[in-house]
Amino acid sequence: MKDGFTVGLVQMSIPDSPDMALDKAIAGIKDAAKGGSSIIVLPELFRTHYFCQKQHADLFDLAEPIPGPTSEAVARVAKSCKVTVVASLFEKRAPGLYHNTAAVIGPDGEIIGLYRKNHIPDDPLFFEKYYFTPGDLGFKAFQTPEAKLGVLVCWDQWYPEAARLTALDGAEIIVYPTAIGWHPAEKPEHGVAQVQAWQLAQRAHGLASGVYIAAVNRHGHEGSRPGGIEFWGHSFVSDPYGLILAEAGDSEDRIIIQECSRGRIEDIRRNWPFLRDRRTDIFGGITRRFGH
Amino acid sequence: MKDGFTVGLVQMSIPDSPDMALDKAIAGIKDAAKGGSSIIVLPELFRTHYFCQKQHADLFDLAEPIPGPTSEAVARVAKSCKVTVVASLFEKRAPGLYHNTAAVIGPDGEIIGLYRKNHIPDDPLFFEKYYFTPGDLGFKAFQTPEAKLGVLVCWDQWYPEAARLTALDGAEIIVYPTAIGWHPAEKPEHGVAQVQAWQLAQRAHGLASGVYIAAVNRHGHEGSRPGGIEFWGHSFVSDPYGLILAEAGDSEDRIIIQECSRGRIEDIRRNWPFLRDRRTDIFGGITRRFGH
Repeated sequence: MKDGFTVGLVQMSIPDSPDMALDKAIAGIKDAAKGGSSIIVLPELFRTHYFCQKQHADLFDLAEPIPGPTSEAVARVAKSCKVTVVASLFEKRAPGLYHNTAAVIGPDGEIIGLYRKNHIPDDPLFFEKYYFTPGDLGFKAFQTPEAKLGVLVCWDQWYPEAARLTALDGAEIIVYPTAIGWHPAEKPEHGVAQVQAWQLAQRAHGLASGVYIAAVNRHGHEGSRPGGIEFWGHSFVSDPYGLILAEAGDSEDRIIIQECSRGRIEDIRRNWPFLRDRRTDIFGGITRRFGH
Repeated sequence: MKDGFTVGLVQMSIPDSPDMALDKAIAGIKDAAKGGSSIIVLPELFRTHYFCQKQHADLFDLAEPIPGPTSEAVARVAKSCKVTVVASLFEKRAPGLYHNTAAVIGPDGEIIGLYRKNHIPDDPLFFEKYYFTPGDLGFKAFQTPEAKLGVLVCWDQWYPEAARLTALDGAEIIVYPTAIGWHPAEKPEHGVAQVQAWQLAQRAHGLASGVYIAAVNRHGHEGSRPGGIEFWGHSFVSDPYGLILAEAGDSEDRIIIQECSRGRIEDIRRNWPFLRDRRTDIFGGITRRFGH
């Protein structure tokens, strides 16, 4: 393996039409590949506007099997560009059984593996528990040609356990396809603090386990004003020290291309050897809900 | 219970003489109590210079039992001030068996409980594995008159598992007596990033579990220049959102007094309900060292 790998993040607003969204994502993949990215990550559920703002049974029609039309379209471009792509999809697994699933598609167009979002949020305008069954594929790092790639999705990013388990599976980088934003009414008071907290949590996961972190968010307002959600962008890459290496703005289409160094992982883990000292003998209580 | 509680952190340099160090700590407790603190935390191993810079068997003479002279001296001032004090001590448990132990001493002068440091570092000039047997008392929150108080020590602060388990035991605040500093030769290149990483890790623990965090470090240079350790101060309190509420400088004696609000814990946890969704059914792998 080379000393490093290059990750490409496609931050974008999502067009009204799913076909246009797919075209835009494919163009982003091509741009990121031209810029030297070997692992390219799309935002969460990039095919459509964030439909979880409401609960409506017809919206399950947006789901598709994997493999299916979207994964196959992404596979074609992954193959033509010789890159790995992480594509976040609304998966129809069986009638009445749906997941929020990230497909890792390799440079031969093959599906290397799936990650089904394990932590499902449910908040006003983020009604995900209605749509998505929690994942049943555990936490995993996928062997891609360039790197061991950990994949988690959005709400997972608040859970240190998810990142730790992914790192323990050998991940060198953990990527988070994301759809997070402001309630417009809250933004003036809480907007800056929310973005900082969101980055803080993920940067700390990278620091705790000595891995790179890459989060890819959409941007733009979706829904009816004055309500709806203003997705806040701020896609970023942080290093195994928790330092932000690259960051997008809150309202721009942006391809982030960032080199990551295996030597830096080794160096940081050697100097702050957190993995050496974990008290695995007394961590069993992590499986408790609360209390003794 | 009142809506909140007030924590006091005694950041100090450590005098050469253990008697002077004790006097200084007692003066700090009194000042913090006068300022309204109900829970007062001293830096790690506040009785002496940081002896773990070298390995020498005679240095075990610095240890003492708990209860013992130091815990009793602290108990007297805790009782006279009607406060809870967290005192970090070099505990002699039996001949040849020593711990790095924090005693939680209540406002009646009683020992509410002990926390024995579970994660023991070992790095150049931080030869702790020579001195301290890893703790065998688990992760705990102690019921004090004012709050449920989680106690961890220094190297524990890099481990999300430690903070999570302490929070799951009901902690409203987690305090970290600490002795961390710069190798003087590394400070120009890495100094700022190291302090940021140190705060990042702990702030994120508070965010992940919706608890306050308080870290109390010593300051000042100890050892022979140009070597030795320059302890970096920067004691701080962060809120359940990960925001820093108060912070000391890198080279000052400073009492931080910070009110903490139970209402804010409730509010933050209600709006970002991370504890609701933890996938405790698939966290068992946390007890693995690495891999499958």
